[in-house]
Amino acid sequence: MGDEVVESREWYLAGYSTEGVPTSDHLKLRTVSLSLADDSIPDNHLAVETLLLSVDPYLRGRITGTSEGLFISQYQLNQVITVFAVVRVIRSKDSKYSEGDILLNPNAPVAEYSIVPSSQITRKIDTSNGISLSDYLGSLGVPGFAAWVGIEVLADPKPGSNVFISAASGAVGINAGQLAKIRGCRVIGSTGSDDKVKLIKEEFGYDDGFNYNKESDFDAALSKYFPDGIDVYFDNVGGEMLEAVLNHVNKHARIPLCGMISQYNKVWTEREGVRNLLNMVGKQVRMEGFMLESYWHRFGDFAKDMEKYLQEGKVKSKNKINIGIEGFLESLNSLFSSSNIGKVVVQVKA
Amino acid sequence: MGDEVVESREWYLAGYSTEGVPTSDHLKLRTVSLSLADDSIPDNHLAVETLLLSVDPYLRGRITGTSEGLFISQYQLNQVITVFAVVRVIRSKDSKYSEGDILLNPNAPVAEYSIVPSSQITRKIDTSNGISLSDYLGSLGVPGFAAWVGIEVLADPKPGSNVFISAASGAVGINAGQLAKIRGCRVIGSTGSDDKVKLIKEEFGYDDGFNYNKESDFDAALSKYFPDGIDVYFDNVGGEMLEAVLNHVNKHARIPLCGMISQYNKVWTEREGVRNLLNMVGKQVRMEGFMLESYWHRFGDFAKDMEKYLQEGKVKSKNKINIGIEGFLESLNSLFSSSNIGKVVVQVKA
Ligand SMILES: NC(=O)c1ccc[n+]([C@@H]2O[C@H](COP(=O)([O-])OP(=O)(O)OC[C@H]3O[C@@H](n4cnc5c(N)ncnc54)[C@H](OP(=O)(O)O)[C@@H]3O)[C@@H](O)[C@H]2O)c1
Ligand SMILES: NC(=O)c1ccc[n+]([C@@H]2O[C@H](COP(=O)([O-])OP(=O)(O)OC[C@H]3O[C@@H](n4cnc5c(N)ncnc54)[C@H](OP(=O)(O)O)[C@@H]3O)[C@@H](O)[C@H]2O)c1
Repeated sequence: MGDEVVESREWYLAGYSTEGVPTSDHLKLRTVSLSLADDSIPDNHLAVETLLLSVDPYLRGRITGTSEGLFISQYQLNQVITVFAVVRVIRSKDSKYSEGDILLNPNAPVAEYSIVPSSQITRKIDTSNGISLSDYLGSLGVPGFAAWVGIEVLADPKPGSNVFISAASGAVGINAGQLAKIRGCRVIGSTGSDDKVKLIKEEFGYDDGFNYNKESDFDAALSKYFPDGIDVYFDNVGGEMLEAVLNHVNKHARIPLCGMISQYNKVWTEREGVRNLLNMVGKQVRMEGFMLESYWHRFGDFAKDMEKYLQEGKVKSKNKINIGIEGFLESLNSLFSSSNIGKVVVQVKA
Repeated sequence: MGDEVVESREWYLAGYSTEGVPTSDHLKLRTVSLSLADDSIPDNHLAVETLLLSVDPYLRGRITGTSEGLFISQYQLNQVITVFAVVRVIRSKDSKYSEGDILLNPNAPVAEYSIVPSSQITRKIDTSNGISLSDYLGSLGVPGFAAWVGIEVLADPKPGSNVFISAASGAVGINAGQLAKIRGCRVIGSTGSDDKVKLIKEEFGYDDGFNYNKESDFDAALSKYFPDGIDVYFDNVGGEMLEAVLNHVNKHARIPLCGMISQYNKVWTEREGVRNLLNMVGKQVRMEGFMLESYWHRFGDFAKDMEKYLQEGKVKSKNKINIGIEGFLESLNSLFSSSNIGKVVVQVKA
């Protein structure tokens, strides 16, 4: 440590991308020199090294250059991009934190090293409780909390309810399915490969599931897996699947809208239109979009539940850890294929 | 009255209609003979003459021959159709009712005379309270109650909220607009003619409104009338207008789905797809369909409010009374044009 200048690789925004999967035209890696010398760090700031970067679908919404759809603040051209990350303190100018502390920064530069205001930090991680660091970005992070808000707060299902979850083997889906099982529901998932279908049943407690890439007719699949109709649809994908679900909803069904990943790479006028919203009237369906920003006051309740579930093995976590900051763009793009299981994390440093 | 046999004209279902406005191929008038003699009336039944028939958009859903969309029970082929009606007792075989009583029957044959089980009757009308009989089918009936459920129960708007109501000059719309004004909201309506726009502003307290038949670009219209965005959209029409609204919603907007009349005459695969549901995630919108069947336990609260509002002049009612049972089909079809203001009622007998 000490007064040295480090070379720090970082990802920055080179251009906005309204359509399609982002490429190296949009996100680029560069190396910058950063002084970690004591007098380079302002008061109430921390010099940190990045351990783990969270790779999330909403990031797509931050490089569209428009504020539609997710209405998320846009990254700035030529600036380093930021994500949720687990970081370790190298040097502290805030008495609350010391060298070696492992912290959660929801607004961390996608960089090997950074100097950040300590006010950004939301949590000091207790490394002695048996929970892996990557779980703080997965089951105990954004995707786990999104699963909890959707199932516990918005769907609030009765035991025996028929629950459908799309992107079921993803970071949110795995947690949502397990939380619904804890509530005593019958839980069915859709995901993108036969292996993943097998896995959600064998490892994550889903009652059944299907591979949407192999179903030419979602309607027929839902008839088969939901002979008694759907009470809760936890929507991660939107589009065609949402339309199909609306032909199978039961009276008073609830649809928490967590995300619509199948639509993120399209401009809105090219998105798949849902033609059967009239069914929501006849079946008295409640559909509700949510963003975690509105539920932070519940984060403590969530974390208490989830830590216990993880420690007792009632919820199993699954993280896909890609090594090396240089792979960040590839990891982001992999979210838009069916190649991952669980939470995608980039490990910058062990 | 006495023992005579009457000739009674009635409308019956001659054929289902999946698409387009129903015609005389689907609903036909016939004359039947009906004995009103004492021994023709079973115990706990009433012989009644029909005074007023309620003409409602949901009837369209009862002759599609499918149970999609509104999921409403289908009329049976060759049987007389039934609607909400105000009837007068001719002869009673139930001690609770006597000759001359004026009653509400939610399941009344669309016929000049009928013999019905007294258990069907939901209300004896007090004719001394200054409220017109047709208001029991309008502001105090299905449309008024739907307006109340949508505004008071589901939207529950704060004073100053920006409220948009489509089909604003219709039976539901007029009541919904006035209820939202009572809650202190800023209320804008869309309707099908310039005259109607004028009327909702001058007579029914809307702050402003526009003629959707003259707007080539709903998006631009909404930008103009909602510079601060939409907090509540009371949806009566669905389709293209709903899509346009979703580009103008504020954070936590609420959308009670009352009906989607612009889509009723189309099979579902031909309905207008809504492409921007992703906005519901970013803006955390709650959209909820409702049917009055789930809210009957609140009818008393509603009726108490609404009677008071009518008597105090805080809600003005408006009924379009078409004379003669022979005009029933034409009245029904008129709902799918922009020709009416307020609640459409067929007067069978004064
Ligand atoms: N509202 C919030 O606050 C909030 C918070 C976190 C996440 N989210 C949303 O929740 C959803 C899931 O997020 P996550 O973090 O758990 O990501 P994830 O599920 O781990 O990764 C995305 C997964 O989506 C599936 N997918 C990709 N493209 C698809 C397509 N075109 N059609 C259907 N499925 C497709 C892929 O799995 P398979 O194809 O194999 O199924 C992929 O693995 C996303 O929509 C995300 O934006 C919302
Ligand atoms: N959920 C429930 O329990 C419940 C109960 C009652 C009613 N409803 C629904 O509430 C809505 C209004 O019913 P209502 O009784 O008050 O009927 P209404 O508004 O009195 O009559 C229908 C009106 O809709 C408008 N309209 C017709 N076709 C249209 C189109 N293609 N696009 C846009 N507007 C069109 C017309 O007015 P303008 O074109 O001039 O605007 C017409 O006057 C309907 O959708 C109905 O099904 C639901």
